[in-house]
Amino acid sequence: MQSIVKLYQVKARPPSLADNTGDLDRLKKVTAGVLEGQNPVVAFSRIAPVAEAFRQSGFQGFAVVAHYASGPQLIDFYAKKPEFLVGMALDLGTTHLEASLVNLLNGKVLVRAAEVNGQLEFGADILARIHFAATKAGNRNGLDLLQERVIESIHKLAAELTRQIKIRTSDIVALSVSGNTTMVHFLLKQNPYHLCREPYIPVVNAPDPFQAYELGLDLHPASIVWVMPSIGSYFGGDLISGILASGLDQQDKTCMLIDVGTNAEVVVGNRDWLIACAGAAGPALEGGVARMGMRADIGAIEHCTIDPESGKFEYQTIGGTPARGICGSGVIDLVAGLYLARIIDIRGKFRPQQPQAKGRIIEQKDGFAYVLVSAEEAHGANPVLLSQVDIDALMRSKAAMYSILTTITNQVGVSFKDLHHIYVAGAFGKHISPRQAIVLGMLPDLSLEVYRPLGNSSLAGAEMMLIDASARERCLEVVGKITYVELNVNQEFMIRFSGSRFIPHTDHALFPSVPFYGES
Amino acid sequence: MQSIVKLYQVKARPPSLADNTGDLDRLKKVTAGVLEGQNPVVAFSRIAPVAEAFRQSGFQGFAVVAHYASGPQLIDFYAKKPEFLVGMALDLGTTHLEASLVNLLNGKVLVRAAEVNGQLEFGADILARIHFAATKAGNRNGLDLLQERVIESIHKLAAELTRQIKIRTSDIVALSVSGNTTMVHFLLKQNPYHLCREPYIPVVNAPDPFQAYELGLDLHPASIVWVMPSIGSYFGGDLISGILASGLDQQDKTCMLIDVGTNAEVVVGNRDWLIACAGAAGPALEGGVARMGMRADIGAIEHCTIDPESGKFEYQTIGGTPARGICGSGVIDLVAGLYLARIIDIRGKFRPQQPQAKGRIIEQKDGFAYVLVSAEEAHGANPVLLSQVDIDALMRSKAAMYSILTTITNQVGVSFKDLHHIYVAGAFGKHISPRQAIVLGMLPDLSLEVYRPLGNSSLAGAEMMLIDASARERCLEVVGKITYVELNVNQEFMIRFSGSRFIPHTDHALFPSVPFYGES
Repeated sequence: MQSIVKLYQVKARPPSLADNTGDLDRLKKVTAGVLEGQNPVVAFSRIAPVAEAFRQSGFQGFAVVAHYASGPQLIDFYAKKPEFLVGMALDLGTTHLEASLVNLLNGKVLVRAAEVNGQLEFGADILARIHFAATKAGNRNGLDLLQERVIESIHKLAAELTRQIKIRTSDIVALSVSGNTTMVHFLLKQNPYHLCREPYIPVVNAPDPFQAYELGLDLHPASIVWVMPSIGSYFGGDLISGILASGLDQQDKTCMLIDVGTNAEVVVGNRDWLIACAGAAGPALEGGVARMGMRADIGAIEHCTIDPESGKFEYQTIGGTPARGICGSGVIDLVAGLYLARIIDIRGKFRPQQPQAKGRIIEQKDGFAYVLVSAEEAHGANPVLLSQVDIDALMRSKAAMYSILTTITNQVGVSFKDLHHIYVAGAFGKHISPRQAIVLGMLPDLSLEVYRPLGNSSLAGAEMMLIDASARERCLEVVGKITYVELNVNQEFMIRFSGSRFIPHTDHALFPSVPFYGES
Repeated sequence: MQSIVKLYQVKARPPSLADNTGDLDRLKKVTAGVLEGQNPVVAFSRIAPVAEAFRQSGFQGFAVVAHYASGPQLIDFYAKKPEFLVGMALDLGTTHLEASLVNLLNGKVLVRAAEVNGQLEFGADILARIHFAATKAGNRNGLDLLQERVIESIHKLAAELTRQIKIRTSDIVALSVSGNTTMVHFLLKQNPYHLCREPYIPVVNAPDPFQAYELGLDLHPASIVWVMPSIGSYFGGDLISGILASGLDQQDKTCMLIDVGTNAEVVVGNRDWLIACAGAAGPALEGGVARMGMRADIGAIEHCTIDPESGKFEYQTIGGTPARGICGSGVIDLVAGLYLARIIDIRGKFRPQQPQAKGRIIEQKDGFAYVLVSAEEAHGANPVLLSQVDIDALMRSKAAMYSILTTITNQVGVSFKDLHHIYVAGAFGKHISPRQAIVLGMLPDLSLEVYRPLGNSSLAGAEMMLIDASARERCLEVVGKITYVELNVNQEFMIRFSGSRFIPHTDHALFPSVPFYGES
């Protein structure tokens, strides 16, 4: 374990007429001794506080050293060894931030929390916020406000986390940030203009670490801020985190990593090579897009079943509370169930005459819809429906997903059967049933053992950066090693996409385990 | 020549769908190529401006790289090669600042200027300002004001210098500062409290380089600020500059360096060893202390002679203007002349009955005085006198100086005759006649060939730092190599001091070239 910030116990001889070197020089000298001759640097802003703390401590105690790639930096001095030396890991999500505090002395995660991204007010999705960044709001510009808002959210998280373990936010001496490229640009107040315009170029992929005060972060002012590098506009540090957390870059056997949000990002590889792509998977799997859709949160229908014989519908919500909507995993379960009960056909179109649909199908202005929770059952809350429009969106998403997976594996001459594991990241990985996704033809028809949910690997990667020097080196190796394939400009992709817009697929042989109702 | 900031011509392939790395990462990559694989770092504050300048320049042009000890830092990007790449060298004196602009492309000094240190308002000497630093002035504290004032003086100098060569202050990409330890503390806003209290410990001797904006300096914001390291409270970076400028640390033969202000600082050594000491030389040689004394400035009597036979007095002023006062070199000439004309005795006391003094000696409340410029000659301006009190002060100063020189050479077992050169720094070195100083017994009785004036070696050292990487390494070697002897705690010194309070010395054999009038 090599934490990004470490304590080194040092003891200097006190100054005397015979030894009248400066306080800071004295500290640097003894610290260089315990750092095996590496001379630590002291940033200008830290000269006075570090020298003063050293003197106040009687010229002995604990040097607080941040390990930058360019060398060690002395950032503070403690008279006594603290119980915790705390780093904050941050998953900088578009809708939510998740963070944890890690004890850098032993690598243990102390506490975790989540917070809504305060930028939501300025745009629900990335493109809306990029647009907002370029606008003026009063005498402020949008980019300033976006940065200000996300920093407020980070401060809220830091306050909540530190409150739980009874420390001050100024005790946080390191921050590692993992997020998509756009969110990182907003945090660093970098112009996002070219991120969404061909050829989609970030201002910076791998910013050098810096001090928290430079960003206006209210942590320890010299807290080292370490930002997970990105590969490009559509392949951010959150994905690099996923690679590190899954260990994809260290596996002997070829594996795949899937992360699904508005975009689907996919990495295939092993210790020798890594290939990645990102493609628009469609919004159907994200909360707030299907009319009744929502994030995987309290009250969301997370899983549901339809008995293929009787058509009996049953569901569970997250937290067991009354249903408020349906999240991505619920939609996948539902549409798979509708197909197996033949309530929809292979194109995903409603068959309202199907007996199993009895009492569940209603007709609206824009087509049929399936009633999950009726107005009566909802007791005054909104009923929960899934409309033909929602299913059409899912069909496009699942087709895009399968096409992406086929394209990238083809690109490297790997077949799905060669994949030792498929890691599924994020909320999507945590909640979906791979079996139902296979029925839909969204994921390849492989043994369920192959599929591994990763949880919040963006946060896990950020945590690794705080405590593991080899992981910090690995992430730069990964960035250097990875080959990025731009899917949007790939002709093959559109052909594959067309073939995937059926349940499970036009080529039924690809999904031997799934009943085929093409004759209907 | 290895300037501290250099230009590197680079050309990157423009971004494309097939090569979508970030702007800054692209620039860092091509720059690492011309830096022989060293990866340049970009400070947080420079991400946006450097990336933007690179893009605006069409991804080709000149990378501006500051060479820190910890590695190269990319600080800016120019589309075209500028005529000058400008560094500012600064001698941070207690009363005056002197500065020059150096073209870092070829090492040439472009222009020089001087400016009064704006801190004078808060105290004429170092101790007064250290006291002021700890006081409150309204709702400001003294240290803040001292820093603010010296920064204003630096800004004035920068404005004046850049005006002369028609560039902007923001074109200054490097600043090297050479000054005494206290002035450096004020500039960096470091607490000077312990500098003047036993055991006289600085907050910092060798601050790591930093960016101009961190200090609030209105130069290029990422201008690298390089501060000449000091050895202790009484041996500052200005002296290290003197060692570098004289080349004392590279000489085969043993040499000596003398710098005289309120303190006399002396270094003896060669390429193998260096020993240094500083001692109170008394204020007689500094401007403004002898009642008629002044700095070596326009109107100061710089040199004068008294014919030993006739007593005829003649003088020259700096600038040839009417005499306003007398500077240190003039005082030395005068007192030597008074001795040779026997107008004073070996103790430095006036002999008013001496014929050569006729018409020149007046009696005042506190004793006799010699009239250099009478009220009549002064045409309404103040007459210029040198009183017994002034001469007594000079006698103490010259005794201190000679005792310091004897003590330090004794310490290392070197006799004056072994000294290949004696470098005399600063205004003192520039203006004094070594011969007259020898007559007084202030400097050893050696061939005049041995004495070498150094000029403003503090500024010269600062200039070297800007353009010579080996000199930047040398200065750290010097700091590591030098042995500092604290004179104030040396018993021997007081014995020597007593013997030196006569002209030229109680031991006349030490000054064979000087007439001895001990029998008078």
